[in-house]
Order: sequence, then structure tokens, then C-alpha cells
Amino acid sequence: MSIHTFLGRFLSKYLGRPSLNTRIFSRLQPLDLSWKQKAKSTFSEPNQIHSVDEKGNRPMNNLNKYTNRTYTCGELGKENVGELVSIMGWLEYQRMDKFLVLRDAYGETQLIISDEDTSTKELLKTLPLESIMEVRGTVSLRPKNMVNENQSTGEIEVKVENLIVVNKVLDELPFNIRSFQKAKESLRMRYRYLDLRFSQMQRNLRVRSELLMKMREFLINNHFIDVETPTLFKATPGGAQEFIVPTRFPGQFYSLVQSPQQFKQMLMAGAIDRYFQIARCYRDEGTRPDRQPEFTQLDIELSFTSVEDILNLIEDLFQYCWPKFSNPIPYKFQRMSYAHAIENYGCDKPDIRFDHKIRNCTHLLKSNETVSTDHEFGAYYISFPKEYAISSRRLKESMSSLSKSFSRLKFVQSIINSREEWVKIMGSLLTVPTAERILDDNELENGSVLFLAYGNKGEVLQLLGKIRLEYVNFLENSGIFVRKKGMHFLWIVDFPMFEMSETTKCLQSAHHPFTAPNINDVTFLQTDPLKVRALAYDLILNGQEVGGGSIRIHDPSLQKIVLDVLKIDSKTVQHILNMLGSGCPPHGGIALGLDRLLHILMNTNSIRDVIAFPKNFEGRDPVSGAPSSISDRDKKLYHIKVVDSDMDI
Amino acid sequence: MSIHTFLGRFLSKYLGRPSLNTRIFSRLQPLDLSWKQKAKSTFSEPNQIHSVDEKGNRPMNNLNKYTNRTYTCGELGKENVGELVSIMGWLEYQRMDKFLVLRDAYGETQLIISDEDTSTKELLKTLPLESIMEVRGTVSLRPKNMVNENQSTGEIEVKVENLIVVNKVLDELPFNIRSFQKAKESLRMRYRYLDLRFSQMQRNLRVRSELLMKMREFLINNHFIDVETPTLFKATPGGAQEFIVPTRFPGQFYSLVQSPQQFKQMLMAGAIDRYFQIARCYRDEGTRPDRQPEFTQLDIELSFTSVEDILNLIEDLFQYCWPKFSNPIPYKFQRMSYAHAIENYGCDKPDIRFDHKIRNCTHLLKSNETVSTDHEFGAYYISFPKEYAISSRRLKESMSSLSKSFSRLKFVQSIINSREEWVKIMGSLLTVPTAERILDDNELENGSVLFLAYGNKGEVLQLLGKIRLEYVNFLENSGIFVRKKGMHFLWIVDFPMFEMSETTKCLQSAHHPFTAPNINDVTFLQTDPLKVRALAYDLILNGQEVGGGSIRIHDPSLQKIVLDVLKIDSKTVQHILNMLGSGCPPHGGIALGLDRLLHILMNTNSIRDVIAFPKNFEGRDPVSGAPSSISDRDKKLYHIKVVDSDMDI
Repeated sequence: MSIHTFLGRFLSKYLGRPSLNTRIFSRLQPLDLSWKQKAKSTFSEPNQIHSVDEKGNRPMNNLNKYTNRTYTCGELGKENVGELVSIMGWLEYQRMDKFLVLRDAYGETQLIISDEDTSTKELLKTLPLESIMEVRGTVSLRPKNMVNENQSTGEIEVKVENLIVVNKVLDELPFNIRSFQKAKESLRMRYRYLDLRFSQMQRNLRVRSELLMKMREFLINNHFIDVETPTLFKATPGGAQEFIVPTRFPGQFYSLVQSPQQFKQMLMAGAIDRYFQIARCYRDEGTRPDRQPEFTQLDIELSFTSVEDILNLIEDLFQYCWPKFSNPIPYKFQRMSYAHAIENYGCDKPDIRFDHKIRNCTHLLKSNETVSTDHEFGAYYISFPKEYAISSRRLKESMSSLSKSFSRLKFVQSIINSREEWVKIMGSLLTVPTAERILDDNELENGSVLFLAYGNKGEVLQLLGKIRLEYVNFLENSGIFVRKKGMHFLWIVDFPMFEMSETTKCLQSAHHPFTAPNINDVTFLQTDPLKVRALAYDLILNGQEVGGGSIRIHDPSLQKIVLDVLKIDSKTVQHILNMLGSGCPPHGGIALGLDRLLHILMNTNSIRDVIAFPKNFEGRDPVSGAPSSISDRDKKLYHIKVVDSDMDI
Repeated sequence: MSIHTFLGRFLSKYLGRPSLNTRIFSRLQPLDLSWKQKAKSTFSEPNQIHSVDEKGNRPMNNLNKYTNRTYTCGELGKENVGELVSIMGWLEYQRMDKFLVLRDAYGETQLIISDEDTSTKELLKTLPLESIMEVRGTVSLRPKNMVNENQSTGEIEVKVENLIVVNKVLDELPFNIRSFQKAKESLRMRYRYLDLRFSQMQRNLRVRSELLMKMREFLINNHFIDVETPTLFKATPGGAQEFIVPTRFPGQFYSLVQSPQQFKQMLMAGAIDRYFQIARCYRDEGTRPDRQPEFTQLDIELSFTSVEDILNLIEDLFQYCWPKFSNPIPYKFQRMSYAHAIENYGCDKPDIRFDHKIRNCTHLLKSNETVSTDHEFGAYYISFPKEYAISSRRLKESMSSLSKSFSRLKFVQSIINSREEWVKIMGSLLTVPTAERILDDNELENGSVLFLAYGNKGEVLQLLGKIRLEYVNFLENSGIFVRKKGMHFLWIVDFPMFEMSETTKCLQSAHHPFTAPNINDVTFLQTDPLKVRALAYDLILNGQEVGGGSIRIHDPSLQKIVLDVLKIDSKTVQHILNMLGSGCPPHGGIALGLDRLLHILMNTNSIRDVIAFPKNFEGRDPVSGAPSSISDRDKKLYHIKVVDSDMDI
């Protein structure tokens, strides 16, 4: 009894099913590859299935090295006609049990079954799409009227001499691999191994791999050293959003690092003076859309450097690694101070793909208001010309609803139909002279739309910044307006060193406690800390933050002063103070968020489309269902008990 | 009042200390770099400080790009004499406040302070070694009798024109950066940022970075795609040694992956048919020396492949990436079956750098023994010739103590002084004819040392395998014996599919449950599973395992059979079964343990010397003291309570 026969019986008995593909083990047997020798007589090296492309193109043969195929499904052409080939892939399509399309990651190839080959025709009758096949056959030209110019293999077809079903699809698949039938995202994520077969997902992951490699190449060429730093580290005191990991020591936990910040500074003290790492980082933000509990950043740090040097480094890096298929990017990126960004765009990551900045009219309204002492008063507006003035109730409501979260502000939105009408309506609110002056000072035309807000200056700018984006989104979705195309990088510099926490009303670091102050502002560290600018910078791409960094404090005395300003007990970072006092060079660095960068580069709907196995918006793994319960043995090993969060601990 | 003066007062007041280095902020000020232009007039690009090496060597200038220095401390030579340069680094040495040595990661440069420069001389009087300095000065030739040929910069010195103390060492350092005064490992690890300054640690990390990059290059050139897979995943049911991570969902935990196994198989089903990743993996093995809770592996998987292909791939990879400073390695690695390794070396990772194999003499002793039914009987010995026969009590005791953990075996160790004496002594144990036959059959000379064991065959081989290594370690430490030099790679193939767990007495996977069986042995899957060989392979280097992998099961029916043999509930890996049934190509892969590989390559005392920030043998981070306690807020957030492990849960 042959193994195959045995196995057929064995499996059908075992699974209680009458029929099963008896060829399932065929790929496990050593293939007789002597026919490959016939197919090409120029083989020299044992592993080199076919020789370098005669046309001098990048040879594709490496793609088939270490496999049982001679070609991918994307590479056969006229020049292969007459050749005996072996190709493998997924059954994408079949018609009349005669014409098949075999697909792999690299393309599709059309197969023809000869009319005499009844056994293969019989096999195909019950073979589901997406089954894995191995095909041997001879390449032949397609009839002229069958040539498909949109297909890389559109001039040829393969006349099948031998077809093996290597792995049959068992049950009906939850969705087809047809781009015009895109499934819902939740289903795509649950069956990610199917979703990855779509060419767009293939492309996203392949571009990701290529971009990361180019980044490494640039940095290695510039003598940066790739150092892997731990992810199991000490819980930061008071550090929020850190996952914890129980250990076999009762009551003692690692935390998963949010970034390699402390380690990279220690590398600088350790004379690894040019460091990089494509680092996995962890942040528990609960359920926030478009955030992932684990994410990847390109982490860079170097010694004896300056803000200018680091900005240059990153510009050179992008120049080197930016893919050719995307829009070209400039050698130097635009720069903007934090203060300018807030004053003109109402946020620290301005979208500069369109103008329509926020305008200051504080001088016109100041006299109208009883100025409060607990905040700086400001009056600002943003306007759009006649052609962008939309009378849409939905739009108006959406703007009003934005303003509602700033309840202490006065907010006006209006289309200026005529000067007279506007002054009449607005006069009651602003006084007639002020309403007139706003029109006069700002050269507002009839037909313009105007959003005006006044009150707490910070909040006014924040509101108008949101309105600017929301209004343009609406215009763009309505087809009335188009943002500038391309990739618009922007540096934001001169960030404040500290900010007032809205929840605790205490000072906190705008970047992190190891960021160096601007030397010109050091005198304000204790007298007026909110005035101190940091040597920190963010990189913005098309209105989204894709990176940020700073020059770090290298002097332990200054570090202690900053910790004291922040009311952080310096004992909790004593190892950092010791490190700074042990001979630590001045240093600085940056981290680029690669997931978001790729999301913008590939213009995907969400960050999840550039990640192979993303978590969903709840932080769950849709494939395996993680997180899940654990065994009592584990609970015992790690000395923990699960409790209701409302209970006392 | 200048900032510096202010700051001096401010800091001294703040810290209550009378004097502090007032120059600590000097590096934060923009440097006047116009003098750089004078130093070299050929600057063309703004970032290119000096042009390509005239000698045609690899240009070093990239090392100084994006920094404030013009040269490293390792690159100045005769050709720079007369040049005004800027170098930065650690004060390594000083004599008479006049001769200094400045060190950075790339070398040392000698500095000379002019006798007139009394202020710098004064400064140096109290400056501790390892402080960071920035020096500007002119390169000049050393007097002939002062040339140091062992130093890359030994022909020159820099006459100091300006010296700034950038960061002064504050307290006495726990150890000096002097290679002849190596500190204890616990101290080195606690102050890792000091330890990294040693040239050996610098070299280890730099070679690591280079080797990993070469591996990536090879794989990318062969069209493998670098895909990052999640580390937060589902707890494997019954999976031991997995760290768990509590989430905001009460009672639900992620686990940290032990390897990307499931993800890489899903990539194969998803048509990412050539995958690699330098992956962080996690394993909680409690306190085991030379193991790390997190470690790095080069993870590879490809579709439509075979054992032969994967072995070729790895051989080609090593050929490409192996550093030139190490011993060359062969194009093809030796191969050995698991059975052969066990029979001849008593273990599955034989050290083939010396011979002295284990010999079978079962046929001579079998008749002597009442053969037990619960195991296979075996009698084996290992011998060393006269020149390696050591009469050492300590050695003899150490061998005896090894044998004590195999209490059911009979074990004999003896030097054969003369045939007569040996037969006399052994005759009582083995019977005289058997004792004689052992000598005759095995051509043992007078003066040889012999270790003989019999009983349970598996245990006999295990014991003699340990004795083989231990004895040779002793010989080598005594200077009597030397193992073959160089790097000896070895493939172990034909592993068993299953093994009997010693603790549970149940079948378990020798590799993992997704490993494919050898087609020739499939018939034994249910009848005699221990007889089934797997398509699994390990890579051994100098007697240590540095990698392992297998061809995986691609057929869902076969996977279910294997799960049933292992008594694993297939529901727990239903997503894998679904994936295999969705059109999954045949595939296989391998993972290489990079920490151990580098440890062997760099010939370090421990695996910790090739890791930037290793945990100690207890799994603690010596720098920060992690793991540590967490806040009540965190416990509440993650719904856990710390309990005494003896309590009921």
C-alpha cells in the first residue's frame, strides 16, 4: 500500500469524511528537478535557477532562489516561449475548467489545460478558488486577440503538462481576493492572512520594508551604530500609559518602554556617539482610534551635535530614502517657530497645504471687553472668499458644535452678504464701530465667510485652528477645494520647555524632562518657566506629526534644576543624574514615527493599513482574539489576583 | 550681568555649593565655525567638513558630519600637520598639567598645553579624568623620540589654542576606564554607561551592528521582506515561560511572544512569500545564567521551499555576512543526523572541534544484564589515550558527581595501567570475559583513560556526552589539549517529531506543533509517534545551538492529526487551522539566535558582553533596578492585586 493511498484512507477515516485530496503531501517529497536542467542548459551554480537577465536589468532570479519554482507568476514573457517552467501560486480564476489564472505576490499567469487532459479538468470541477497549485508546463504565445497589455505576462500563457493541487481551500472564504469587492475592515483584520493577498496590502508592506532598509543604509553609511535596547525596563515614577509586566518577584513589575530615551542617553555617555534603532515602543492609551499599543519608531541620537545638525541629518536622510514613486521632496524643509504656528494656524502641526491663516484682530475688540486677569485676551478670525462660502446647515452646525467645547469664548460665524446687513447684525454684539472696523481693517469682501472668536487667547486660537481644518475638509469633500498635492514637510522649532497641565494645574514638560532649555531663556527657569523655550523640534508632514526630538541636558546640575521645577523627585532618576555626572558629552536626537509616516506616504485610510498585524481600535488582536484570560498557574507564578476595579486594593 | 555670571551665581546658590563650572552651557551656544573654513579651504558642501581621503581609503568624513568636531580623536596624522582642528572627547590621561590624552570612540590624541597658557593649566589642576573637553588647536609633528607607533595618531600631537571643559565629572567614578583594571561584572553592569567606553565593548556593539546590517543586506538582495510582527499577542494555552501583560479589560492579558512563529506562517498564507525580521522575543525562564528575558533572533520564513533550500540559504547568508576578521567558514556546512549525534556525541549539539567520540559496546555487555522492559539497554564508553590520562582527584570527583545524577546507571572510570590489573579490578563488576573483550574489541592501550556506562541507553549517552565535554574542558584548562581553532558550523537534521516529557510523561513536540513530519514516517503518526522524524534542523556552532527551524505543516487535516497526537485542543489554535485551510502554500523557515552567535564570534566570557544593556542572572536591570513596585493607580487600572504566592487564588 503506497503512502498516498494509506494516507487517503487514514485521513478520511480519521476525519470521518468520504473524500479528501490525496495529494496533500506531494510537496513534502523531494522533487525530481532534472527537468529544470533541460529547461535551461546554462545553469552553472547549483542554486542559480536561471542566469542574469540578458537585457541588463536587475536580475529577478534571486526571487526564485531557495524555492521549487523556476519563475514567479509575474515574470514570464515572450522571451520564455518554448521553455519548460515550474510556477506556483493561488488559483485566482477559472473558466470552463480550461483557462486558469495563477497568482502569486508578483503577478498573474494564464494557464491552458489541454482538452485531452480529462483528469485535470475533472479535478478543477471541484477545486475552490484560492487553492494552492503547482504547475509545470511550456510557455507559448497567446493568440494576438488574447494579448492583455495591462498584464506583465499578458503576451504568453502556459500550456499545462502537470498540475498538482498542493493545498486545497477547505471551507468557503469570508471574502474573495477581488479588489472590487473590498470587505469591511473588521473582517479584513480578522482574516488578515487573506487581506494581505490584496495587491495594495502587498505594496504597503513591501514599500515599508524598502523604506526602512534605505533609512538603515543611510545611517550605517554615516557611521551610526544600530543598538538594540531593552523593552523590559523600570516603571517610570508617575509615568502614565506604561504597560506593566509582572515578574516572579512578588509585587515587582517591569514596564514596557515608551521609547528608548534613557538608554540612548546612556549610550552617549558610553561613547556610542552615533546611535540608531528601529525600535518597538509601547503605550497604553486605552481605546483611541488610529493609535496602536505597540508601534515602531526610528530612534536616533548623536553626541557633540546641535539643533541645526540634527535637522540637516534628517533632511539628508529623507532625501536619501524617499521613494521615487512619491512626489519629490525639497533638500531643505520649511521651518516655523512654535509661536508662529500657534498664532497663524492655531496648532503646533499646521497643515501648510493651504493658506487661509488665522488673523489677529485683538486691537479692534480689546476695548470692548472686560479683560480677565487669569488669561491673556485675544480676538482672532479666519475668513474664506466668496467662492468658498457655503450655505450649508450641516456645515454651520458642525462649526457651532466645535465652538461648544470652548464655552467661555464668544464665537461668531457669518457670511458677509453686504456691509450694511453685517454691521446691523453684528453691531448689537460687537458695537457698530467695532463691526465696521473689522470689515475695514481686514478688507473683507461681500460674500466672504467669516469665523470670529474672542476671549482666552489660547482657546481662541485652538478653536479657530480646528475650524480652519474642519472647514477645508468640508470644502474638499464637496469637491470645491483641493489642498496642494505632494509631501509638505515642516519643522516646528522653539517649543516651550514647560506647559501647564490642564488636569493637575502643575507644570509639566512639553517634550520630556531631559530636554535642554534654550541658553537665552535659562534665566527664566525659576522666575517665569512658561517663558523658557526648549531646544526641541517636531517634524510635520502634511499637517501630521511624524517626528520629534531635542537637544538633551548634559549637565547634571541643570538637570536637577529642571527636575525641581517639574517637582519630580530626583531620586527616581538618580541613575540618569549619575550618568550625566560621569562624563557625558552634549547630545541630542530625534524619533520618527514610522507607522504614521508610511500611512501618509502610502495615502492609506488608516495607520492599520501599513502594519502587518495591527490591533483594532480597542487594542485587541483581531486574528487571535488577544488579550484573553490566563491560567491559575500563571496567576500564582506572578503573584497576582484579578480584582474588580471598584474594589479597594 | 552676563548669562554665565548669572548662572554661576544662580547654580551655586541653588545647590548651596561655592564653586561650579560656569562653562557648562558653552556647548549650547552656536559655535562660530568660520575658523573651520580657514582650516580647510576645499569645503564644497555645507555639511562636508573635510573631503574624501586622498589615499583612496574609505572616507572617514561622514563620522564628523552633523557634529561640531572636524576630526575624531583617532584620525589625525602627518598629513594634517599645520591644520587648525576641533576635537572632542573624554580626558583619558594628564601629566604635569601639560600633556593630555583625549579619547573618543575612535582613538586617542595627545594634546600639549603651552607653558604660557596658565589659565588652562590652572583649570586642569582640579579636572577629574573622564571629563568631557572640546579642544581647538594646531596639529604638529611629535618629536621623533616621542612617536608612538601603536597609536593611529602616534606621529602627531595637537598644540592647544582653546580648551573648554564641556562637562566635568562630578563624583569619583566607581572604576577607571583602564583595560588593565577591569572591574567586576556586577559593577560594570550597574554602570554600563562607563563600561561601554572600554574598547572591547565598543567593538562588540559595533561588530554586532555591522553583522546585523550585512544579514539584512543579503536578505533584501534576495527579495526577502522585512516585516515587523506584534509582540503583544495571545497567551498560548498551556504555553509556559510566557510573560503576561495585564490590560484595561478585567482579567484579560496579552502575552509577550516567544517567537513570531504564528505570524510568519500567516504571512506565508498572505503571499508575503519571503519574510525576515530581526525580532525581539521574550521568555521567562526565571533565574538561569546566560539567559536573557528578552533576546533577539533573525527570523526567516519562505514559501514553496524545502529543507535543502533553507540550509543552502543560511549557508549563503553566513558566507555573505561573516566578518573578515574572523576565521573563514566553508561554503557548505557539515551535516549530521540527530541519531548519529546522540549515538556518537551524547547530545544534539555536538562539539566537533575534537574527536574522542562515544563508542558502543552494548553487544559485549548485553548478556550480562537483566534487560529492563521500560527502556532500551545500552553500554557505551569513551576513552582518551595515554597523553590525556590525568590522575587528578578533583577531576575524578567531578566525573563521579556528573554520574550521580544518573543514579540508575552503572558507571566506571579507570586508567588502564595494565591489561592484567584492569581485568582483575573490572572482572568482579563485569565478569572477567567481558572485561577482557572490552579491551580486545576496542584496542585500548595501556595508559588510556576509560569511562564506561551501561543501563538505560538514552541516559548512558547523555552522561557520556557530558563527560566528553567536561573532560576536555579540564584538559584544555590544564593546557594539555587544544580544541581545533576557528568556527565549526554543523547542521543537525532528522530530529524526532515528538519526545516524551520527563515531567508529564506525555508526548510533546521536539520542535513545535507546527513542524511537518518526514513523509516517509507519516504512517507511524498514530501507531508509533516517537519513531516519526520531523523536517526539522538545528544549526550548531562550536558545540552551541545558534539556530533552528523546520518545514511547517501546510495541510489543515495533517495539522489536526498532529495536534490530536499532542492532545492539544485544536480550538485553541483554530485561527491557524483556518489559515491553513484558506490556501496556504507549503513553507518553512528558521530562526538564528543572534546574541549567542555574537557571543561565540566575539569570543566573550558571557552572552551579556554582546548586549548593550543586559539583565543580570536574576533577570534584573542593574542600571535602573527594574523590576520594581508599581502604583496603586496602576494596580487599579489593570484590575490586579498582588498576592502571596502561597495563598489561594
